[in-house]
Amino acid sequence: MITKPSDALPPSRLERVLAGEILSPPPVWLMRQAGRYLPEYREVRARAGSFLDLCYDPKLAAEVTLQPINRFGFDAAILFSDILVVPHALGQEVGFTEGEGPRLDPIAGEAALGRLDLSQATKRYERVYETVARVRSTLPRETALIGFCGAPWTVATYMVAGRGSPDQAAARLWAYRDPAGFARLIDLLVESSVEYLAGQVAAGAGVLQIFDSWAGSLPDSELDRWVIRPTVDLLARLRSRGVTVPVIGFARGVGARAPSYLAATGVDAIGCDTAMSRSTMLELARTTAVQGNLDPLVLVAGGDRLDRDVRSLLAAMTGKRHVFNLGHGIVPETPTEHVARLVALIRGERV
Amino acid sequence: MITKPSDALPPSRLERVLAGEILSPPPVWLMRQAGRYLPEYREVRARAGSFLDLCYDPKLAAEVTLQPINRFGFDAAILFSDILVVPHALGQEVGFTEGEGPRLDPIAGEAALGRLDLSQATKRYERVYETVARVRSTLPRETALIGFCGAPWTVATYMVAGRGSPDQAAARLWAYRDPAGFARLIDLLVESSVEYLAGQVAAGAGVLQIFDSWAGSLPDSELDRWVIRPTVDLLARLRSRGVTVPVIGFARGVGARAPSYLAATGVDAIGCDTAMSRSTMLELARTTAVQGNLDPLVLVAGGDRLDRDVRSLLAAMTGKRHVFNLGHGIVPETPTEHVARLVALIRGERV
Repeated sequence: MITKPSDALPPSRLERVLAGEILSPPPVWLMRQAGRYLPEYREVRARAGSFLDLCYDPKLAAEVTLQPINRFGFDAAILFSDILVVPHALGQEVGFTEGEGPRLDPIAGEAALGRLDLSQATKRYERVYETVARVRSTLPRETALIGFCGAPWTVATYMVAGRGSPDQAAARLWAYRDPAGFARLIDLLVESSVEYLAGQVAAGAGVLQIFDSWAGSLPDSELDRWVIRPTVDLLARLRSRGVTVPVIGFARGVGARAPSYLAATGVDAIGCDTAMSRSTMLELARTTAVQGNLDPLVLVAGGDRLDRDVRSLLAAMTGKRHVFNLGHGIVPETPTEHVARLVALIRGERV
Repeated sequence: MITKPSDALPPSRLERVLAGEILSPPPVWLMRQAGRYLPEYREVRARAGSFLDLCYDPKLAAEVTLQPINRFGFDAAILFSDILVVPHALGQEVGFTEGEGPRLDPIAGEAALGRLDLSQATKRYERVYETVARVRSTLPRETALIGFCGAPWTVATYMVAGRGSPDQAAARLWAYRDPAGFARLIDLLVESSVEYLAGQVAAGAGVLQIFDSWAGSLPDSELDRWVIRPTVDLLARLRSRGVTVPVIGFARGVGARAPSYLAATGVDAIGCDTAMSRSTMLELARTTAVQGNLDPLVLVAGGDRLDRDVRSLLAAMTGKRHVFNLGHGIVPETPTEHVARLVALIRGERV
């Protein structure tokens, strides 16, 4: 078993809930909490070159990872990075245009897989591990550090389409036409993601999250083949390398199919998107920790609606293993005062 | 009660299933079946001016509505039109750019509602009714004619954002910040949609479908407030005007929340998107007719995968009230031979 720096730390509140405890107030962090809604992030972003330069710069990436902790005292920091670091490290061209989203040189079929190089990726990941180590050495002892990757399916949808797409048609069509060829891409992503996550844990990440943002559009058969099975495979390989940290699975948009995802993968917590029914969350909470669900747009709106929705979620999750979070990433338009109020509401502080 | 031309016709196979019969083979039609995958459609489209010109041209719109019936002998024709005819008729500027999707002059808040004019809309709808009447007079007697509109929520998302948007953030945010103002827009859409659908039925539509393409992203509370309640309202007003034709509700992306939608709205059939679980479809089929679910991309892929998925869906729905359809609109890249094969597979014809 790999000994990781975080073994020496007392478990954070997040890790305690992931290990089975019920805590009140629940631990809280926000997806994309190091991001454009923070003026101090925008200041660093302006100093960095490209967005990917920032992801690969251990000093600046560590700085932005810590910003939301310093400002709001969240219970967990999440590594500042992007799910497209993996295809980039593998050798695919990846660029980010302001307001346009990512653009990749598309991988159009099995023949193009030769362009991807696992050993090159392993080397490029080292800068990310350095960021993790820097963050862990600075982070307050009681704050968890979350490492992450995109799930193979979700990363593949970008690699194949060359961009984000509303229906992930390019990857889905490849998978229908040539499942064996598409499986090679998925297997390669599983292998490189295991390497990447194990490296983050060795560098100090105490929790992992797997983002499967585009799981929701798939029919049952494809959800099983391209979301659930690769995640099972990824986790088995991670465990067999001696990585024992808890894993949060976030398969966005799967709704009432989340209990099947949970049963098959055995993740330690389920990320719940905004559209997940309260009844499905409660069903999941019978056997695992649940995280998320608050609409990021309610956090933009603020006011009575924010207070009401936060209190309603807290009330519904009382006595459950609950990690407070949004149902999706915080959006750039979010006023920082609303985030401060959210944290105060959760912690029962005077607001 | 309004006497409609279709009262004189024997019920079509689609109407028989919607009224409670189980038919084998099931009736079949495809969402967006009059569209760009057909060369004869592209030929007419090139002759028409703008896309909206085509929607408002009774002769050409009737011609393209009939094209897929002539070619494939589907059990139902669906009026060729667009859900954005309603905002356009109400006075909002709407344009369609090739490959870009719709662009509208956004309605940014309650103050902008003054721009919308119900009586003007009523007048503009007459050209659509003329299309319906033309189609009905030409359509084989055994073929159903489906009229439709977008559900108020889905239409509002375009009206507010000025375009399609992956997360419908603009409408959702308005609804959080100013539910009373947003409700005025929804009420106005309910009112104009009732008028529009009643007019289509009076002109000869024997079945109606309500497309709520963007229902899936909403949390439970908002699904209830902006999808289910306006649909209940719309149907109640339609019934109180003496419109008794069956209604198919298609709330895309709601997954296991579809039974709640069904119970509240009392629609005569549920449209099932591609991601809907087989188990939810079977649950729905206990009390209503179910329609859809085949992935449009499987129809693009064709081959063994198409055969397998069609047979699997038919087998699962044997003995149920089933209408064969896709889980979403047919895509332009679909080979017409795959559509011919689909119909032959469903009807057990030699392929």
